Amino acid sequence: MSTNHGTAPPRLGVGFVGSGFNAGFHMQAFRAVRDGDVRGVWSPDPARAAAAASRARSLDIGEAKPYASIGDLVADPGIDALWITGPNHRRVENIEEIVDALERGRGTLRGIACEKPLARTVAEAKRIVELVRRAGLSHGYLENQLFAPQVQAGHALTWSRGASKCGRPYLARAAEEHSGPHAPWFWRGELQGGGVLNDMMCHSALLVRHLLTQPGAPRSSVRPVRVTAHIASLKWTRPHYASLLAATYGQDVDYTRRPAEDFASLTIEFETDDGHRVIGEATTSWNFVGAGLRLSAELLGPEYSMSWNTLDSGLKVFFSRAVRADAGEDLVEKQNAEVGLMPVVADEAAVYGYENEDRHFVRAFLGKEAPRLTFDDGLEVVQLLMAAYQSAEEGRTLAFPPPGLDQFVPGVARGTWRGAAQ
Amino acid sequence: MSTNHGTAPPRLGVGFVGSGFNAGFHMQAFRAVRDGDVRGVWSPDPARAAAAASRARSLDIGEAKPYASIGDLVADPGIDALWITGPNHRRVENIEEIVDALERGRGTLRGIACEKPLARTVAEAKRIVELVRRAGLSHGYLENQLFAPQVQAGHALTWSRGASKCGRPYLARAAEEHSGPHAPWFWRGELQGGGVLNDMMCHSALLVRHLLTQPGAPRSSVRPVRVTAHIASLKWTRPHYASLLAATYGQDVDYTRRPAEDFASLTIEFETDDGHRVIGEATTSWNFVGAGLRLSAELLGPEYSMSWNTLDSGLKVFFSRAVRADAGEDLVEKQNAEVGLMPVVADEAAVYGYENEDRHFVRAFLGKEAPRLTFDDGLEVVQLLMAAYQSAEEGRTLAFPPPGLDQFVPGVARGTWRGAAQ
Amino acid sequence: MSTNHGTAPPRLGVGFVGSGFNAGFHMQAFRAVRDGDVRGVWSPDPARAAAAASRARSLDIGEAKPYASIGDLVADPGIDALWITGPNHRRVENIEEIVDALERGRGTLRGIACEKPLARTVAEAKRIVELVRRAGLSHGYLENQLFAPQVQAGHALTWSRGASKCGRPYLARAAEEHSGPHAPWFWRGELQGGGVLNDMMCHSALLVRHLLTQPGAPRSSVRPVRVTAHIASLKWTRPHYASLLAATYGQDVDYTRRPAEDFASLTIEFETDDGHRVIGEATTSWNFVGAGLRLSAELLGPEYSMSWNTLDSGLKVFFSRAVRADAGEDLVEKQNAEVGLMPVVADEAAVYGYENEDRHFVRAFLGKEAPRLTFDDGLEVVQLLMAAYQSAEEGRTLAFPPPGLDQFVPGVARGTWRGAAQ
Amino acid sequence: MSTNHGTAPPRLGVGFVGSGFNAGFHMQAFRAVRDGDVRGVWSPDPARAAAAASRARSLDIGEAKPYASIGDLVADPGIDALWITGPNHRRVENIEEIVDALERGRGTLRGIACEKPLARTVAEAKRIVELVRRAGLSHGYLENQLFAPQVQAGHALTWSRGASKCGRPYLARAAEEHSGPHAPWFWRGELQGGGVLNDMMCHSALLVRHLLTQPGAPRSSVRPVRVTAHIASLKWTRPHYASLLAATYGQDVDYTRRPAEDFASLTIEFETDDGHRVIGEATTSWNFVGAGLRLSAELLGPEYSMSWNTLDSGLKVFFSRAVRADAGEDLVEKQNAEVGLMPVVADEAAVYGYENEDRHFVRAFLGKEAPRLTFDDGLEVVQLLMAAYQSAEEGRTLAFPPPGLDQFVPGVARGTWRGAAQ
Repeated sequence: MSTNHGTAPPRLGVGFVGSGFNAGFHMQAFRAVRDGDVRGVWSPDPARAAAAASRARSLDIGEAKPYASIGDLVADPGIDALWITGPNHRRVENIEEIVDALERGRGTLRGIACEKPLARTVAEAKRIVELVRRAGLSHGYLENQLFAPQVQAGHALTWSRGASKCGRPYLARAAEEHSGPHAPWFWRGELQGGGVLNDMMCHSALLVRHLLTQPGAPRSSVRPVRVTAHIASLKWTRPHYASLLAATYGQDVDYTRRPAEDFASLTIEFETDDGHRVIGEATTSWNFVGAGLRLSAELLGPEYSMSWNTLDSGLKVFFSRAVRADAGEDLVEKQNAEVGLMPVVADEAAVYGYENEDRHFVRAFLGKEAPRLTFDDGLEVVQLLMAAYQSAEEGRTLAFPPPGLDQFVPGVARGTWRGAAQ
Repeated sequence: MSTNHGTAPPRLGVGFVGSGFNAGFHMQAFRAVRDGDVRGVWSPDPARAAAAASRARSLDIGEAKPYASIGDLVADPGIDALWITGPNHRRVENIEEIVDALERGRGTLRGIACEKPLARTVAEAKRIVELVRRAGLSHGYLENQLFAPQVQAGHALTWSRGASKCGRPYLARAAEEHSGPHAPWFWRGELQGGGVLNDMMCHSALLVRHLLTQPGAPRSSVRPVRVTAHIASLKWTRPHYASLLAATYGQDVDYTRRPAEDFASLTIEFETDDGHRVIGEATTSWNFVGAGLRLSAELLGPEYSMSWNTLDSGLKVFFSRAVRADAGEDLVEKQNAEVGLMPVVADEAAVYGYENEDRHFVRAFLGKEAPRLTFDDGLEVVQLLMAAYQSAEEGRTLAFPPPGLDQFVPGVARGTWRGAAQ
Repeated sequence: MSTNHGTAPPRLGVGFVGSGFNAGFHMQAFRAVRDGDVRGVWSPDPARAAAAASRARSLDIGEAKPYASIGDLVADPGIDALWITGPNHRRVENIEEIVDALERGRGTLRGIACEKPLARTVAEAKRIVELVRRAGLSHGYLENQLFAPQVQAGHALTWSRGASKCGRPYLARAAEEHSGPHAPWFWRGELQGGGVLNDMMCHSALLVRHLLTQPGAPRSSVRPVRVTAHIASLKWTRPHYASLLAATYGQDVDYTRRPAEDFASLTIEFETDDGHRVIGEATTSWNFVGAGLRLSAELLGPEYSMSWNTLDSGLKVFFSRAVRADAGEDLVEKQNAEVGLMPVVADEAAVYGYENEDRHFVRAFLGKEAPRLTFDDGLEVVQLLMAAYQSAEEGRTLAFPPPGLDQFVPGVARGTWRGAAQ
Repeated sequence: MSTNHGTAPPRLGVGFVGSGFNAGFHMQAFRAVRDGDVRGVWSPDPARAAAAASRARSLDIGEAKPYASIGDLVADPGIDALWITGPNHRRVENIEEIVDALERGRGTLRGIACEKPLARTVAEAKRIVELVRRAGLSHGYLENQLFAPQVQAGHALTWSRGASKCGRPYLARAAEEHSGPHAPWFWRGELQGGGVLNDMMCHSALLVRHLLTQPGAPRSSVRPVRVTAHIASLKWTRPHYASLLAATYGQDVDYTRRPAEDFASLTIEFETDDGHRVIGEATTSWNFVGAGLRLSAELLGPEYSMSWNTLDSGLKVFFSRAVRADAGEDLVEKQNAEVGLMPVVADEAAVYGYENEDRHFVRAFLGKEAPRLTFDDGLEVVQLLMAAYQSAEEGRTLAFPPPGLDQFVPGVARGTWRGAAQ
């Protein structure tokens, strides 16, 4: 093929901290990113780092290599930005290691993007914000759902065709529901920081606020003022399912003694800068047994509404009871059946927002766009989640932010929660 | 930003012949193509060429410039491949001009991708195939629907989970329906080559055959043997609508005297290399007044089925009768209303297959993948379409290929068709 | 409970000829009929007659008794009307027996309602019409789909809100598709009169014409003028499935030697009394393996469209791969799976139109309404079906009615058809 | 037509107290009731009583006459049961009048069926229960949603195919949402007893409990133990909409000074008799602007789920922006648009459960079935609703039943609520 004519424009060299399920989604997504290359992967397990780097090369998204340490990854001058995708309980440690390397003068890192949730407690989140600020790094908060094409289109259309003519929306709903996560640490409150509320309501709590915010307006134009939450363990503390968890993920996942919530609901009342009270309702579940992962949202206003549901897919397959079907995850993430009428989510990395998200943050770290979500947003989400746990524990609505939020650690994380509905 | 480390991999320089609606979709799609840049645009109208080049630059998909002639575009050594997106009646002339430039020693062109249909008659299509073969060009046939993510997933799943266990599918259906094209030449049989059958059944006729073909098997494993078609003018010859056409597109679009069909249906019987007879049904319409463009397909086999419908979207908006709504095309291509419950097709360039298609052909012309569709496929499609017109004109099923196909020109193109249902 | 005050209004006493699957639907439906009682059942099998009568009593739809002969049923003065629901090959014989009884002076029968198709050939249908006319009976043709609530509403709305303002519709589509009938005689061309075309296109062929006809206008305002059809055996002649048929229904169902078509498509061109050509497309299949029976239709006009699909149900259930599921038919008629995401058709007797149909014909025979469908409609349907078989056999479009229609017997019925696609 | 043979079975003579929107649904439904006749109507407005009686006669559901007083209606020996469908603030008075007439020895009334909610406060509900008990009347509580065919089927299938094998469901959701009621009294808290919570959560609160209860088991097997609710006025206190209300319904509907809530959410925790904690979530809204009335529900358990949505209808119509559309309610109850893609709910009286409901209660009062819902159920619903208001006012979760429930009157009813979100 012909050589490039003129000077090639700069490209962002990206390193991955983590090599799990989520990193896989990002790698898939980088196939649709024009100006970023995956050049490195670090994982505590060198074999997994090597496998992930190999996968990146076979996807032709960059000449990725495995690295022996986060420090080495940071030190490589070809790495301009990091994507943090590891488990929650390594978040602070990962970022400390990055900042430590930088402060020892290694590397030329400019930016850091971090998966949700930013941290497990407000204290951790504040520590992380302080670290990146001290290091002078650009930062991006990886909340994919805000970048989902259908969310972007629905948000834009509702405001342009509805709110601009009839007044702002007053109610947003968002839910993320599936039948439970894949890796053991998610199930352990002391590692993950909680149960499904901590794991997934970070998505939905931010999504409702985003939908209620006028495109282009600052997020602060819609401020949380009151918070009410419920948590419960509805499925996984039942003896059969508690046994199943232990058998699958090991004895450390013991839901007879140390359960985490598998259901959470949250009502947030917001004040808007033009004096309205509006409401966001968020729901998350690890006990939803439907076709697979279901992301859904609604936005309602005076003469309009919007609804989004990833399982209302334009593609459906049907297999009869005569088909011998192997269990798999080829129809949809967290798929629960292979027979019957099943929706298919084709191209999940696009549909769930990863393509748009990674394209945006690559461009943001290249200086072509302002980052749409930063660690400050991630911190606010943690504050909301902790207030939600606090509300659920106290059985009442709390003004936001409630006192003591900075020190708060959920009972589920402390191991004191016993699974009764709250 | 840091400079690239090592040698940058080669990138494909792409030039556009044409700057209309379809070119716009491709440009949108190049935002998700890693290793191709749009570097030039030619249009017979210099202002439109300049505008399209400017749009490419603002999309940040390449340093696109307008060119004064196809010859100049070919001559630029930064142009490695061309995307032909102009009107049907310029197809042969465009490609002659390209090949002429090459034969005069200009440029370093390697490949050429051409929009559907490849040509208006079998004679034209054979001429085009001969030209690119003579010039030694790689060629790609741009049939986006085969690259639509939901089509790819549905095809793969149906075969892997269904056909592999219970036998091959026996019936495929595909339809493309909307309320009529945007530019005047589409409506004129003598320019376009026909009506909706020529314009859109190229999609559906190939899609049914593709769905019936085992992934990885050659298209020749499923051979058309009998063809039955109907055409009719159902809406646009009604006086009110004929007037509307003339008022919108000028007096040359005169459906009282020279109509083209706005409805076509086609049944193809195929023989498979393992001895089965299977059926493809294709339908196209310019008189479908629903939310907007509807692409749909089904694939049916002994214990399974698949269905696809682009208007069964996971995103819906609703606006009440109290909303003053401006007509637009922001919800879906060829949108017919702005009020009521409306599906939204977010990210149409991805959903309709343009992103995957352009990514594939860029990689194909870079030598990284074998082209999945070539001009030979485009020729076969034209052969099917001409046999379809012949069947409709004769009111009977034809063995395929029927005699005289190479010389056949549809009555609609010759101006002799008078619009009665056939 | 209090006695009735005043004179009780007359009620229609109904007798059933036949006690199979279809009779079951009608009995279910009579639960919603105010002024008709099921008082008798005849079946060639006395045990089945007794069981059906017992079922009617347990449904509390009348004091039904089994009868030893059709003559006895007719003779009972409490029987005012008969519902003929037996197999196609007994139709003429059943009606001859009824008329014979009447002509011998027995009973006080006023009306007779007959299930679709009215007969297997035009000759048979004409014989039936002649018999009921001679006997002076009121007659009703039981085409349930025209009475389906969603069809009634869709038809009414499309015309009142669309056609009345923008012109009549020009295209109607209807399909009835499932995975094959339940009783052996359906599968045997020589008994049933054909395959799926005869069995089910009677529904769809009439439905498209009905949809294209203005509410209140005579059916003759939309006259069939050209007919094109295809038939094929796509699934059940495959060796595995032919064996399955023989194993299930006995050696008389031998699809290796005497197949019937399991797929049929039909295009009807109509002339309207205001000078338009409009099109009806009908499709039927015994090889559709989806959730279960799928009834669907579309009606398209200049600024509007309507779509109906019984499987797009507002009720869906999901069962995971962990559920041990017994095969059944409790979700939907002709259900093919019990696991996965499945639509449920609740209250099928209402949804498919039986309730409205039976209510209407009871009222018609009571003299409260004019019958909306008579045996004359049934005869016209048979004429269309026979023309369709003729077109498929000849591989060409036929002007309707074609010569020789009165004597025509399909090759499938004669046992000469060998299953190649036509 | 022939006379009845033998003795005609007894029929239930039904009188209507009330002649509004809801009475219209019941009359529509009686067309599908075999053994009950509408024989009388009383309304405070004699003209409306006459019109409703005339409508009943034209529907051929009985020889209905208007009555000058409730006493006269009760006194008619042809009236065996009353259907109470009037406004909430006349409930106690209506029933007192009935019982008074009976106690004065008039009439032969056996049963009384009453629309939801049974009353506006616990005190009123207890008074009503006491009255009917004293009078020795059979009583039926008219909660149509439990009789909706899709709810019945979904409930049955989920338990038979899911819960029986994998354990009982743990989460039920139900919502009733539309854009606001039709008559002035609904909007006035002091008359209606509250806002949307009182008006519509009676449906959803009972529905979630019903879904969580094993078919056949007593409702007491699933006992409410904790209640959390929110109420808010999101739309109708906005100045434009408050003016609209006053303009439409008169100055007594003044939402600037005396608003009622237009949004309510409720979480109920239940204890089951086998020791589980399960959750019901109910949502109601007068500010949902979608196609029209939306009834929806979900039921989730360990390996299964069910979803119901009345707007996911199998019938859809589309009208383009070129159609001049008159506002109407012919597509769906509380319809908000006539253009665009709109779902149609055909046969609403059946779909919403009225047909099954009326058939059941007629049979119950005839002694053929035990009533599935009585005033005791109605009382429990009122207790839950009042606890919900109390929870919303206090901003906390309440153990159920909370102290003081018998005396509780919501602030919205007392006129002290000012519309801030709670």
